[in-house]
Amino acid sequence: MRKSSRGSVDPFIVMDVMEQARALEAAGQQIIHMEVGQPGTGAPKGAVEAVRGAVAEDPLGYTVALGLPELRARIAALYGDWYGVDLDPARVIVTPGSSGAFLLAFTALFDNGDKVGIGAPGYPSYRQILKAVGLEPVVIEAAEENGYQLVSDDLAGHGLAGLMMASPANPTGTMLDKDALAAIMAGAAREGAAFISDEIYHGIEYDKKAVSALEISDDVYVINSFSKYFSMTGWRVGWMVVPPDHVRVVERLAQNMFICAPHAAQVAALAALECDAELQANLTVYRRNRDLMLDGLAACGFDRIAPPDGAFYVYADVSRFTDDSLAFAARILNEAGVAVTPGLDFDPGRGGRFLRFSYARSTADIETGLARLAQFMAKMT
Amino acid sequence: MRKSSRGSVDPFIVMDVMEQARALEAAGQQIIHMEVGQPGTGAPKGAVEAVRGAVAEDPLGYTVALGLPELRARIAALYGDWYGVDLDPARVIVTPGSSGAFLLAFTALFDNGDKVGIGAPGYPSYRQILKAVGLEPVVIEAAEENGYQLVSDDLAGHGLAGLMMASPANPTGTMLDKDALAAIMAGAAREGAAFISDEIYHGIEYDKKAVSALEISDDVYVINSFSKYFSMTGWRVGWMVVPPDHVRVVERLAQNMFICAPHAAQVAALAALECDAELQANLTVYRRNRDLMLDGLAACGFDRIAPPDGAFYVYADVSRFTDDSLAFAARILNEAGVAVTPGLDFDPGRGGRFLRFSYARSTADIETGLARLAQFMAKMT
Repeated sequence: MRKSSRGSVDPFIVMDVMEQARALEAAGQQIIHMEVGQPGTGAPKGAVEAVRGAVAEDPLGYTVALGLPELRARIAALYGDWYGVDLDPARVIVTPGSSGAFLLAFTALFDNGDKVGIGAPGYPSYRQILKAVGLEPVVIEAAEENGYQLVSDDLAGHGLAGLMMASPANPTGTMLDKDALAAIMAGAAREGAAFISDEIYHGIEYDKKAVSALEISDDVYVINSFSKYFSMTGWRVGWMVVPPDHVRVVERLAQNMFICAPHAAQVAALAALECDAELQANLTVYRRNRDLMLDGLAACGFDRIAPPDGAFYVYADVSRFTDDSLAFAARILNEAGVAVTPGLDFDPGRGGRFLRFSYARSTADIETGLARLAQFMAKMT
Repeated sequence: MRKSSRGSVDPFIVMDVMEQARALEAAGQQIIHMEVGQPGTGAPKGAVEAVRGAVAEDPLGYTVALGLPELRARIAALYGDWYGVDLDPARVIVTPGSSGAFLLAFTALFDNGDKVGIGAPGYPSYRQILKAVGLEPVVIEAAEENGYQLVSDDLAGHGLAGLMMASPANPTGTMLDKDALAAIMAGAAREGAAFISDEIYHGIEYDKKAVSALEISDDVYVINSFSKYFSMTGWRVGWMVVPPDHVRVVERLAQNMFICAPHAAQVAALAALECDAELQANLTVYRRNRDLMLDGLAACGFDRIAPPDGAFYVYADVSRFTDDSLAFAARILNEAGVAVTPGLDFDPGRGGRFLRFSYARSTADIETGLARLAQFMAKMT
C-alpha cells in the first residue's frame, strides 16, 4: 500500500535510547534515567481524588470542544496569578496535550507549503508535526551566545509565515527575559510571521519567573500543558490561548480533529490547579537536582552548558570528547548505566556534539547517576 | 493575525442544535435528545474500577506511542473473537479516539493535494480533517438503492488516492455484507486508492454481524474506537490496524503528533474488553429502542428510511414535508421539544431533505420523544 512522503519522519533518537535502556533493565541491570522528558511524580493527590470521584459518579461523555467551562475559567485566572494578565476565559481552549495544541495552531494559521521557523536546538516534534500537516519547517540554528535562543536578526530572508519559540526551552532550559521575548516577537511581526509561544515549562523556573508572550501582546498563540509543572504527562491535557477572533476557527477545527480533550483528564486538571503546595514540593526536588547537576556535570568535564533557567534539562556541549553523540551516549549507557539523550534529536546540524541530561527524577537517582558519570569520565579521560 | 484557508471548516450543524437545546433546557423546558451521537451510559463498571485502582497506584505517565502492549494484544484477540481473524498484535496501534486514528491514517498515506473519496451521506469530520491536513476530500453521493453506501461504479474518474468507508455507517446505520465490502475494496484497488475502513460502530449490530475489512484483505487501514460499543466516548481511546510494513511509519507519526493515547483511558479500555455482559445489556436497550423507532417514526410519516442494520441512528428522507431540514429541525425542537439533526452535516447536497434520529439514550426517552413527534406531525399534516 502507498505511503506518504510526509509520513517519513525522522525517528526520535531518545526512543531508541529508551529501548536500549529497557533491554538492559530486562537483562538485570539497574539504569539511571537521565533521558526522559517527564516528571517521575504522578498527578497531584487532589487531581487523583477528583478523578476517582468523577469516574464513579459521571458517565464522562464528550465535553464541548473548547473544554469544560469551569476549567477554561480557572486557567484564565492562572494568567492573573502567574503574570498579572487579565485573560478572557473565552480565549482559552483546552486541548489533548500540547501536542493537540500544536496541531490546532498549525492548521488554523498556515496553508500547504507555508514556512514556519523553529530554532535549533529545539523540541524535535515541532518539525515533524509541521511536515505531517503539509507545512515546511525552517530550522534556524540559534547561537550559543544567545543561550541557543533565536534573536530577531536570525529571522530575515526565510520567508516565514510563522515562528515557534519556547521559553524555557527544551533541550536547554534557557529563558527569554521580557525584553528579549518582545524583541523576537517584534521581529516576527516585521517578517509577517504569526508568533506561537510554547510555554509548556512555565512554573518550572529557578531564579526568575518565566515571561508569557501574553504579557507583551494579545496577537499570539500561547500553548501550555498540564504535563510538566502539573506533573500529568500521560493524561494528555493542555491548553492554548488564541486571539479573540481566532476562537471560532480553532473551535471548529477542534470539534472535527479531536471532538474534545479527555474528559477525566479535564476533571483532573481542574483539581490540579488547586494543588500548588504539592507541586511546589516537586519543584523543590527539581531545584535540588539542578544544583547537584550543575556541580556534578562540571566536575565530570561537562562544563560547557547554556544557563538552565527553567525546565529540568541541562544541554551540554561535549565536543571536547566526541563529535558522535549517538555513540557517546551508547557508551555511557552501556559502561556507566546512565541513559542520556544525544543532541541529534534537537539539532540535526550540531547535535553530534551535544548531550541532554534530564533531572526530572528523584534526587537519589541524580546522585547515583552523577557518581557513575564521574567514574566513567575519570576512566575515559 | 493571519488565518489559514484550510481552517475555515464548516460548522457542525448538530452543535448548533445542541446549543439551542441547551438554551431551551436552561429556560426550563425538558428536551428529548435524539441529536446526540453518543451512548447515555458511561464506561462499563469494570473499566471504572480499573481506573479508580490505577490512578491511586500508578503515576500514569506517558505510555509507548503504540499503546500498552497488553491492550494491543487484547485488541488483536478481539479480531479472533468477533471475526475469526488471526491478527498480529504488532499491527494494532492504540490511538486518541478514532479522531486520532483518522489523523494518523491520512498523514501516513497521503501527501498535499491528494484526493480522498468519502461517501455522502457520511460522518462530517472526514472531510474537515482531510482539508485540515492539506488533502482534498472528494464527496461522492451514494444512491438510496445502495443503502446510501458507495459501490465500485461510483469510484471511477475521480483520481482517488484513497477511499474512506464506514459500515455500519453514520448517519444511516446501513451495513455492507462481505460481498459488497469486497467489491468496493476491489474497486478502490482498481483505482489505486488506499482503503480505510471505519468500523467504529462494530458490535452495535442487530440482525447480522458487521464484516471487518480485515476478513477480506490485510492491505487496509481499519479504524475502531472504544467510544460506541464500549460506551467510552469522553475517554478518547480507539485503535487502528495497519499493514505490517506501515507500523513503523505510523509509530513515528504517533510519537510526534500525540506522544500517546491517554494512559488512564488505556487502562479503562483494557478492562472494558472484559465487560461483555454489561455491554450486551446496553445493546439490548438499543435493540428495543430501534424497534420502537422503526414503528414510531413510520407512524409519524417518517417511513422512507435506509435499513438501520447497526449503530443507533435512523436517517429519514423527509422530502414529503420539507426541503429545509434545518428549519424543520428547529420547528421540531421548539414545538415538540425533541432535538434531531438536519441531514446537512452528512450530505451537503441532499441533506436539506433528511433528518437523523439517534436512539442511543434510554428507552423512556425514546418513548416520550416518539409520542411528541407523533403529536407534532399530527398537527402539521
